[in-house]
This record gives sequence, structure tokens and C-alpha cells, in this order.
Amino acid sequence: MSDSVQKLAGLRNSMMENNIDAYIIPNSDPHLGENITDFWRMNRWLTGFTGSASTVVVTQSFAALWTDSRYFVQAEKQLSGSGFELMKIIPSEKSDSLEWIVANLESGQKIGLNGRTFSIGRLRKLEGLAKEKKILIETECDLISELWTDRPVVSGSQAFDHPIEFCGKERSVKISEVRAEMKRLNIDYHLLTSADDIMWLLNIRGNDLKYSPLLLSFAIIDDTQILLFADESKIPFKLAREFDNLGIILLPYEEIAGMISTLQAESSILLTPSATSAELYNSVPKGMKILEEISIPSRMKAVKNKGEIDSIGKAMIKDGVALTRFFFWIEHNLDSVPMSELSLSEKLTHFRSEQENYLGASFSAIIAYKEHGALPHYSATSETDSVIGSDGILLVDSGGQYLDGTTDITRTIAIGRPTERQKIDFTLVLKGNINLAMAKFPSGTKGSQLDILARKALWEQGLNFGHGTGHGVGFCLNVHEGPQSISPAATDGKISIEAGMLISDEPAIYRQGEYGIRIENLILCYEDEETEFGKFLKFDTVSLCYIDKSLIDFSLLDKKEIDWLNSYHSEVYEKLSPYLSKEEKEWLKEKTSSF
Amino acid sequence: MSDSVQKLAGLRNSMMENNIDAYIIPNSDPHLGENITDFWRMNRWLTGFTGSASTVVVTQSFAALWTDSRYFVQAEKQLSGSGFELMKIIPSEKSDSLEWIVANLESGQKIGLNGRTFSIGRLRKLEGLAKEKKILIETECDLISELWTDRPVVSGSQAFDHPIEFCGKERSVKISEVRAEMKRLNIDYHLLTSADDIMWLLNIRGNDLKYSPLLLSFAIIDDTQILLFADESKIPFKLAREFDNLGIILLPYEEIAGMISTLQAESSILLTPSATSAELYNSVPKGMKILEEISIPSRMKAVKNKGEIDSIGKAMIKDGVALTRFFFWIEHNLDSVPMSELSLSEKLTHFRSEQENYLGASFSAIIAYKEHGALPHYSATSETDSVIGSDGILLVDSGGQYLDGTTDITRTIAIGRPTERQKIDFTLVLKGNINLAMAKFPSGTKGSQLDILARKALWEQGLNFGHGTGHGVGFCLNVHEGPQSISPAATDGKISIEAGMLISDEPAIYRQGEYGIRIENLILCYEDEETEFGKFLKFDTVSLCYIDKSLIDFSLLDKKEIDWLNSYHSEVYEKLSPYLSKEEKEWLKEKTSSF
Repeated sequence: MSDSVQKLAGLRNSMMENNIDAYIIPNSDPHLGENITDFWRMNRWLTGFTGSASTVVVTQSFAALWTDSRYFVQAEKQLSGSGFELMKIIPSEKSDSLEWIVANLESGQKIGLNGRTFSIGRLRKLEGLAKEKKILIETECDLISELWTDRPVVSGSQAFDHPIEFCGKERSVKISEVRAEMKRLNIDYHLLTSADDIMWLLNIRGNDLKYSPLLLSFAIIDDTQILLFADESKIPFKLAREFDNLGIILLPYEEIAGMISTLQAESSILLTPSATSAELYNSVPKGMKILEEISIPSRMKAVKNKGEIDSIGKAMIKDGVALTRFFFWIEHNLDSVPMSELSLSEKLTHFRSEQENYLGASFSAIIAYKEHGALPHYSATSETDSVIGSDGILLVDSGGQYLDGTTDITRTIAIGRPTERQKIDFTLVLKGNINLAMAKFPSGTKGSQLDILARKALWEQGLNFGHGTGHGVGFCLNVHEGPQSISPAATDGKISIEAGMLISDEPAIYRQGEYGIRIENLILCYEDEETEFGKFLKFDTVSLCYIDKSLIDFSLLDKKEIDWLNSYHSEVYEKLSPYLSKEEKEWLKEKTSSF
Repeated sequence: MSDSVQKLAGLRNSMMENNIDAYIIPNSDPHLGENITDFWRMNRWLTGFTGSASTVVVTQSFAALWTDSRYFVQAEKQLSGSGFELMKIIPSEKSDSLEWIVANLESGQKIGLNGRTFSIGRLRKLEGLAKEKKILIETECDLISELWTDRPVVSGSQAFDHPIEFCGKERSVKISEVRAEMKRLNIDYHLLTSADDIMWLLNIRGNDLKYSPLLLSFAIIDDTQILLFADESKIPFKLAREFDNLGIILLPYEEIAGMISTLQAESSILLTPSATSAELYNSVPKGMKILEEISIPSRMKAVKNKGEIDSIGKAMIKDGVALTRFFFWIEHNLDSVPMSELSLSEKLTHFRSEQENYLGASFSAIIAYKEHGALPHYSATSETDSVIGSDGILLVDSGGQYLDGTTDITRTIAIGRPTERQKIDFTLVLKGNINLAMAKFPSGTKGSQLDILARKALWEQGLNFGHGTGHGVGFCLNVHEGPQSISPAATDGKISIEAGMLISDEPAIYRQGEYGIRIENLILCYEDEETEFGKFLKFDTVSLCYIDKSLIDFSLLDKKEIDWLNSYHSEVYEKLSPYLSKEEKEWLKEKTSSF
């Protein structure tokens, strides 16, 4: 009997004891972000599935895990024999876990969930569905803590000051700006539940998560003070003193809900439904006016300041140097050194870690050889690890956290001689990447309007890719950090692409069972000209690494695209070569030579 | 004292007597569509403004009319001395009339409006705004009928059968299909408030409106009968008998609200909030389950059937022949016959009216010479009428209603020799038109994603146009008929462009005080190929009229664009020439010759 089967039996017992007919577990922590600590990986513990997106639903007769297309193959394998069925989330179909629950329970039955890790936005959706069928919901129901006896503790070392030389703006200034915006919105309190908002606002970084330099924390801002809820022991003395001077009061992490409940009822609070747990939302005193919006720091930090933009330029050079050395090393050692996806991943980490102010990877690198490249979110394990041979396509999607910025870049290279179709595919993807990078558009344009620029060349050949074209990127914070995005389905109709926003540009093509091709650069939006027809914006491609010319069919590029590539390559060489050895430099000269 | 000033005084008296602090009048009738009869043109009667989009708000100290950028110049002129201020609706600003009212009233004050001509969707918005400030709303408040003593009566001649040879599908089949969809949605009743939905469903057309062949009517569908609320005298005997056989029961137009109130409370009804008046919505029995969605006929009729598509092809030929004769006539008579915008409009109507099965214009034609072309919705009047001289740009946007379809086409031609800048502008607009027409895209793509194709060439030069790129077009119905559109601001995020949809493709550039250029064709979506990446769609340009080559700077077109133009021109010649005289044919041969 597998471990999961036993745990499932335990959970079902507990459900019976607590009169719960269906128990639902999202893959979330109390901050409801993408990255969570091992302490909160309840679904991994329960089912054995290691992917980052999942919802588990258990009834007495049914147990399943919902995940999206990125993880179908992996989940199929990991859930086998676990007692949990795989439920595939397919955007065009009614395949949501909440809808399933409501459809499969009877009137009067009860759903249980832990309101600490369930957003109020999602709870409302569940309530809306359940209401008509008169299904009950118990939102203070933690059945896992008791069963999970060897649960890992939340660790993480101390937080630290993020110096002004990197982040470009004093915390006191940011706080004033947020308060000015609160005043404009006529808001007394602002609840911050996303740790990245707090890191940005206070110019600190932490070590609580693997890929994002966050100190897990909550905050409440009013017009005179900021209550910061975090592990006190992680705030260094010097920082604590400075906080004190700025009216930032440190309180225990666990006291956030209690503190919210003591706020003045005759006042107003701004919070974000998708990032606020049901527990915290329900702590808001009755009668208090709640403004539900994306947080002010989320909007502000999406637009990088001048100092951040300068820092990003430095981070991009360091990241480009590391990548150049990595690809140089592969090409010069392919015949002599055995290489695999995992060993290459270590090698790449090694080159990045040589760079100044490097903190760690910004996500689990995707080093995907041949057919593995067709899985957009493939992550090699010792079981899947492929040995690199003398031919085939290698996809490398990776990024680093530096004090001077967060990087995320994908390059696809040919090992040996590529086929004609590989070259055509690569060139169509490259056309998409270039055409988005070259876009000029009026202020007010949304990412969903621009998305087609990265797809048009593919669509014309009956090709496409199943994910968005671009996600926002944080500054020494989350590698996926909105609200901006470039995607067919704009996540928020109100968000325009603004000057200062950093976004990825990553069209792709996936040939199942054969190979995957993705070309990803980060692009930074800036103001171009202002005419009688309005203000126009453009992008600057800030990622710096050569694009494999052996994969380009130049006959498919038009003059503007070739000019762009030549100019990009010459910039890559100019900016990276001062940091390279003589051999690396010569090699890069050739890789970036004009067509 | 102007007429409007007196009427305003009368309205204010009536407001005082009725304890109304702010009275609001939208430019709507009980069907809430774009086209209304003179009976409902309350704002024109009250203020003198003749534009088609307006909202009037009156308080004791303030009176104003809100309209959008199409009408700023016209409204400025027509409102002068009327006692009404012009309030400009600017999409990016908080310039909505409802917001103004709520901001300018005090708690406890009362807003009055006539719930017969106010959609429940818009009323909810007003209620949402007013609630917090505790402002009251009286929704059964008609202060106009009493004041408007010489109000025109609703006239219109008889409705008529729209034969199957044109519309391609029997009414009995359409009714079954709608009922099947109601069953799928688990809906007992379907309320139809838009007359175009009813015309389509019952294969009839009417004569109640100037530009759309509609019989003003409401309908309620259930699984055995259809209640049709219309002027009985307008239904010919033969049609009435056939309706009777199909379970279509004719009832007086005015009885719709009363009938809704008698529906079974333990049932469900589908209605469309934006097209349902507050009066009708409030007639729905308490407890009845209301599904708020776009109507089933609206969705169905947006996708043209095979018979309609064949008919459209015929209508396009007739329309193209009329336009060709019109432009031929202009070119051959410019030196000898005096021409003005108004006389050309008559001439164009003459050529269209020679065509078989022509019913009338599909909208008020825009014949705009020189600087008038820079007003996107210019409509010449005897006061503004321009005499056509020996140079300058002439913009002609017009359309016809035929039994075999509705047309809408814009051509811009040069009188004399165009300037270099005019040629560049025209060519950039043409590039936009062609690139949208050439689009290939996967099933599920929305109009807002495609919009950029028509703008990219303009944006690259810092140019833009302030309206959407394309609107849906009805079939012998409304010239503006959604739900589909191609626009930066998708009006409904759920609507994809589907095979069978007819849409306009009309990029433009407006040089204020100089000239306007717009090139508009109707494009019909059809299925292209299906690949492992999904089903792909394309457009066929169905409007048929030459594009003025004297305005094209061919050096700005790429090979694909030139190929498209040559192929389009050869199709125009092939399809139109059989119906033209020898001289017209020779002339068109030259106009459509390959580059």
C-alpha cells in the first residue's frame, strides 16, 4: 500500500469525524503567491505530485488532483497508484475543481477547506456555485496539520537591507508615495498580503523561499505607521532601528488576523481579493468599507524606476556573460565531457554563481534536450535526465536573482546539424520574438493587443503555442510578477503596458515527441515619440545572449528583422566582450557576426 | 429665447412638481438599439442636437448633453444658445453622465428617469453609484410626453416575408434551433427585445426605421409558442396565417410588460441586460430565475448560413456595380457638372436604387470632401455642404439594404493630383486594411487580438485612428450588428471571431482641418486548415470596388500586399464587369490593372 493511500485513508477518517463530505486543498500558503515553502506543500505530501500548480479534492468515494497542461505527463506518472485520479484543467472546458465539487455533492452536504490558504476571490466563486444547491462550506477546517506529523518547519535565514544603489529609491519615499495614493483613493488602511509588495516597499529582501528573495510577511499601512507582521528574529538590529525611525512597527507573523479585527470599523481598507485569504478577509470588522483592487505597491513596482533600470542593465550583462561561458563551454567540451540535462543545469548555476551580487536561481531551470523540450515546463529529475548526444535541439530556460535584478532568458541551440524543419520552426519563432520586440504602440495599449505580433508568423503556417507570450518580471523579486502580461487572454482588462514595465517575450513551438523551441528575452518598455495622435511607446530588449544562427533560415526573415538581429548581436558583443576571455570573445564575435 | 430654452424651463417646472432633482434622458427607445424612430428622439426635440448618441441631464442649475468625439464639433454648434452645455465623453477619463450626476447630487436627492428607455444594465450602474451616497432613483418618471405636444407618431408600413431564397433557412428550423439551445441552457422562456433578433428568427422584415428594415416588436419564446408583440395591422394576412400554424401568437405591442408579469414564477427566463429596459426587467415575477446573457438569436444570426453567404455575394456585386458607376460618373462629369457632397449623395442613392431588391440606404451616407473627411461621422447638411473642386481628397462611406444583404463600404479617392503625404497616409491605411484582410488565426481568437493588424503600419509612423477597426454587420438588418467586433476595447471578452461572421475592416487616418482617409471593406470569416495546433480561420474580402491607385505609394507596400491588391482588383473586375457598359468596363479595367 503506497504512502499516499494511507494518508488518504487518514484524511477520510478525519473528514468523517468532522462531518466534511468534500475536502479541498489548493497548493497555496497564506500569501497566495506562486512560490510556497515546503511547510505548505500539502498536496505534495498527500499525493506525491511535485508540480507547482494543483488542487486536491477528496470525498469518501473519490480523490483527485487537478492540474494544467504543463503537468499532465508528470502528474500521470506521479499519481499512479496514489489513490488520486488526475483531473486535467483544459481552459476551454468546464474542468474547474470547484465546479466539479458542486456538481457532485448533494444539497445539505458540507465542503471543508482551510481559509488560511484559500483566497477570498476563489471562496466567493465556490460560494456562488454552492449557494443554489444549498451546499454548506466550512472555511476553518484544517485536517492536514494533525495528520502530517513530520511536517517540515518554516526556516529561512535573516532578511537584509536592499541598498539604494540597487533599488534606486529610498523606502521613506516609497512609503510617502503609497500614502499619497491611499489619500487620493480615500483609504485609511492598506493591507499587504504579498511579501513581494512588502519587500519592494521597505527595500528589504529575505531568504524564506527557494527562488524569490522574500521574507514571508504581512503589512498594514495607515497614514502614520506601518505594522509589519514577520518573524522578528529575521530582522537585523540595524534594520529594526531604521524601521523604528520610520514608524514601522514589527509584530509577530501570526498576529495579522487578530490585528485586522481590531481596526476601526468606521474606516476603509484596500485589499486584493486574489491575494487575501478568506481568514484575513473575514477578520475585517463588519461595516468597514473595503476597496478591492490590486495593491498600490503591485502597480507601483511594476513600473521600474531609473535606478532599477540602470541596475537591470548591469544584471543583464552578468547574466549574459554567464550564459555565454555556458554555451562556449558546451561547444568546446561536447566531444570530451559527458553531459546530461542535470549536469548542464549545475554547470549553468556555476557560471551564474561566479557573478557579483548573485543570490540564486530565479526558478528551477529548464534544460530540455530533444523531446523534453516539447514539455513547456519540463524540469529534469534523476529519472528523466537525458544524456546530450551529437545531434538534436537543446532548450535552456533559466534565470538568476541578483541584487541588481531578476533575469529570465531562454535560448534554443542546435547540437550538430539541424534539420530543415527545425530551422523553419526556429526562424518563425524568432520572427515572433523580433516583431514583438520591435513594436511601437500608443499609450493605453494592452498586452492582449500586442500578443499577436509574437504569433503571426507561426499562425500563417498553421502553428501556435499554448501559453502566453510574456509575463511581468520583478526586480530582485518574483520572476513572474504582474499585473502586466502579454497574452491572448488579458488577465486584467484594466492593465496597459507602461513605460518602465519589464516583460518577457517568449514565443515558442512544441513538436510533441520531437523537440521544443523557445526564444525568450526580457523587454523593457520606454517612451518613444509624442505626436498629434498621442504618446507612443517602444520596447528595448535587455536580455543579452547570442541567438543561434545555425538554426536560422535567413530567407524567411525580411530586411527589418535581419537589421534588428544584426543590431542586437552587435549590442550583445559590445556589452559582454569586455568581461570575456580572449577565446570566449573570439567565439562570441563569430556567434554574433552580421548576416 | 430659443425653443430649447423654453422647453428646458418647462422640464424644470415639471421636475419641481414631481420632486425630481436630476432628470436623465438617454437617446433610446424601448428596444435600446442604435436606430430609433422620431417618436423617441427626445434629446433632439429638447436640445436641437441631431446626433445619434447622447445623454441629457437636467438639474435646476445645470443642463447638459453628453456625446462622444464623433459629434463634438456638431454638438458645439447645435447646442449653442440652447441652454445645454456640451459634455465630452472621453473614454480614458471619468466623463460618464451617470458619474457626473452622482457626484453632483446630495444624499437624499432624487434622480428621475423613464424606465421604458433605460436598460437594466445601465440602471444597475447608476444604482451602484447612487447607493453609497443614498441618492434616490425614480424609474417610472416620464416628464417628456406631457411637454412634447407635437410629438411625431410612430408610423411605418407593413412588414413582409423575407423569402428563403435570400435568407437560406426556414423560420421553423430557426425556431427549433433556438428552442434546442434554450433546452440546453435549461431555460423556460426567452425574452427578445431587439427587433433584429425577431426579424431574423421569423424571416420577416419591416419598415419602422429609416435605415434598418425592422418591425418594432418584442417576443417571448417558450417550448410550444412564441408571443409576438407588434402592431397587428402591420402583419399581412398570409404571414399571420403562417405564424398561426407555427404557434406564433400576435399580441398588441404595448402588452409586453403586462405579459411578462404573468409568467410562472417557478420558471427561468433568458434576457440581455443591455437590451432590456428597466420597465420590462422589473416586470419579471419575483423568484423567477433570470439568466442574463446575449440573446440566442443574436449569437446565431452573427454566423451567416450558407444561403445568406450566397446572397451576400450577390448583394456585393450589385453594390459594387452601383459604386463603380458612381465613381465613373464623377470622373467623367467633374469638369462639366457642378457637384457637392449632397448632390453626390443623391447620385449615389440613384445608382444603388437601380439595383434589384434594393430597399434603401443602410445608414446616412458620409460623403466628405477635404477637411470634412477628418470628421469620422460627418453627414453633410445644406449648411455644411461643400462644392467639389478640382483637387482634394473625397471620402465616400455608404451602404445599402438589399433583400440579399446589407452593405457598408468606404472608398477614398483623389480629385486631381494628391500630395506626397496624402499618398503615404493612404498607403499606410491600405496596408492596415490588407493586413487584417490577410490574417490567418486559430479558432478562439478575439477581435481585440486582431485589431493591431489594421493599425501596425500607422503606429510605426506615430499615427492612429480613434475608433474601432471593425463592427459586425447584419443580413438585411442592422449595419452595426454584433456581438463580434474588431476593436482595441473588446466589448465582450467572451466573443471570438467565428467562421460565417461578417465584419467591417476600416482603418483610417484623420488630419484635422485637412482631410480624412478611410478604406472599408466587409470581410467574411471562413475555415482554413486544421493542423495539430488547432483549427485556423481566414477572411474573405467580400466588398467589391476598386481602390484608387493614384493614392498608393507602391514603394511602401511589400510583395504580399501588392499580390493581395492585384488579386483583389482582378476579382473586382471579373465579378463586376459583366454588369457594366463598354465604357464603364474599359474604365474599370484600367482602375483595376495590376501593379
